[in-house]
Amino acid sequence: MQCLVLGGGGWVSDNFAFSLARALNAPFSTVYTKVFPDGESYVRLPGEASSFESVCLVKSLDYPQDKGVAELILELDALREKGIRDVTLIVPYMAYARQDREFLEGEAVSIRALLRILRAAGAQRLYVVEVHKAESLKYFGGEAVNVSPYEYMAKFLEVDDDTVVIAPDIGAYGRAERLAKALGVEFDYLVKTRDRVTGEVSYKPKEVNVEGRNVIIVDDIISTGGTIAKSAGMLRAAGARRIDVVAAHALLVGDAWSRIMASGVTRVYAANTVKPQSGSPIIIDVAPTVAEALGGNR
Amino acid sequence: MQCLVLGGGGWVSDNFAFSLARALNAPFSTVYTKVFPDGESYVRLPGEASSFESVCLVKSLDYPQDKGVAELILELDALREKGIRDVTLIVPYMAYARQDREFLEGEAVSIRALLRILRAAGAQRLYVVEVHKAESLKYFGGEAVNVSPYEYMAKFLEVDDDTVVIAPDIGAYGRAERLAKALGVEFDYLVKTRDRVTGEVSYKPKEVNVEGRNVIIVDDIISTGGTIAKSAGMLRAAGARRIDVVAAHALLVGDAWSRIMASGVTRVYAANTVKPQSGSPIIIDVAPTVAEALGGNR
Repeated sequence: MQCLVLGGGGWVSDNFAFSLARALNAPFSTVYTKVFPDGESYVRLPGEASSFESVCLVKSLDYPQDKGVAELILELDALREKGIRDVTLIVPYMAYARQDREFLEGEAVSIRALLRILRAAGAQRLYVVEVHKAESLKYFGGEAVNVSPYEYMAKFLEVDDDTVVIAPDIGAYGRAERLAKALGVEFDYLVKTRDRVTGEVSYKPKEVNVEGRNVIIVDDIISTGGTIAKSAGMLRAAGARRIDVVAAHALLVGDAWSRIMASGVTRVYAANTVKPQSGSPIIIDVAPTVAEALGGNR
Repeated sequence: MQCLVLGGGGWVSDNFAFSLARALNAPFSTVYTKVFPDGESYVRLPGEASSFESVCLVKSLDYPQDKGVAELILELDALREKGIRDVTLIVPYMAYARQDREFLEGEAVSIRALLRILRAAGAQRLYVVEVHKAESLKYFGGEAVNVSPYEYMAKFLEVDDDTVVIAPDIGAYGRAERLAKALGVEFDYLVKTRDRVTGEVSYKPKEVNVEGRNVIIVDDIISTGGTIAKSAGMLRAAGARRIDVVAAHALLVGDAWSRIMASGVTRVYAANTVKPQSGSPIIIDVAPTVAEALGGNR
């Protein structure tokens, strides 16, 4: 079954959709979006949309997230009203994924609320690039797939045999493993230790010695850059030679870029799932690996 | 049944909720909202929320609308997860109400999409202050009530017997009628006429002569102020003495205020449903009339 690949408006979404359509050898179009003087969003489907039984709607929820959510709700509702029942929603960056439980009594579990709404608005199935926790996708209540980009991104990285991939914490360990295995190198994660005398907190690789070695730090999201900068500083102090960073989603909020550069990082690689708010990471187009996950048959 | 009146965050919503709680003689609390550095919204219910079976959630969707929509979705989902099944949603200003049909092929019917989502997220019933078209509320798919504020606002206006209420177009005629009847004065609407020789378009009252009389223009929403300014200009040219404006929702986008003042309007009265983006209209607290519509028994 051939789907129309539909960019949901905005630079990131439309370009991701364009690349996805090429990889799928599928037709491509975009939704027209605008903002009224009072701030309300507006969306209009392209004329050809209603002649397809199946649509692959691409909408990244990067900044400004809430405008993206509103546009997406309007788009899904409009597609449903056009009688298009088979809607695959592809979200290169899923916002609200880090608020995935009630950390404090009374907190909204934002990712749960959002995924339920997307399903209710008419998405039949969901593909997401590297959501913060893959388990969160259960809230969608339908077929939902998390696509890991690291194996595909590995093809674009040049490493030597002695390179080591480091996760900044145990939560990103699986990510480090996937990237390292694709690169054929070692991997590890940073553990927190507290000096018994001074009480000072430091982070060290659990197993490997990074002295004199090239290091790649891997994480899913770079927001304010605090975690990356802290990790890079520790690794440099431990004797690491060159430090690069691989992230799925380089939000790079505020002064994140200068903070990361100041910590001694040489290069940041990121997927084309968001528009970075600062800096100049190297962007790797991961639409082909999403196309592969889609099975090439939509 | 006593409900907890819950302000959904933001100045307008929390103040409206406070006044509503007083009018209902009901307990009052607010949702804590904030924004993360990356732009994501966050909401947390107050601790006492889960000890109520019934909640009246007040959330105005004025600017920035999409942030309000996102917060509202999170709030409704959190209330549902706390086991609170009886949720009455009170929306002082309902955004997206003017996009109430497919004017151009493929356009999203935004109000339909929004109302469906609010229902799906867990609102059992809906009270709205003066939605653009009351028929739109059918999309909610449950009990939905439009509350007209004009009768209540009339109590705060001083008029003489010779005052006339004017709707800027036939669409607002019902509004003019409601306000005029409450004030005990005449009402009319402006009709478009085109000069057969010059082709020039002008607007004139359908029936009444405004010469030497005080006029009140009434409309539901003032956005950029274009309609009001144009109407006031025409009425002034037709000899109106003093021109005031009564609106439910004074958005006053951009240079709306100076445009309206330049057109010869003396005073603008509006309900407390939005935070005006410019100018200084006289704000009338209409929460008591919403309380009355709620029946005083929630």
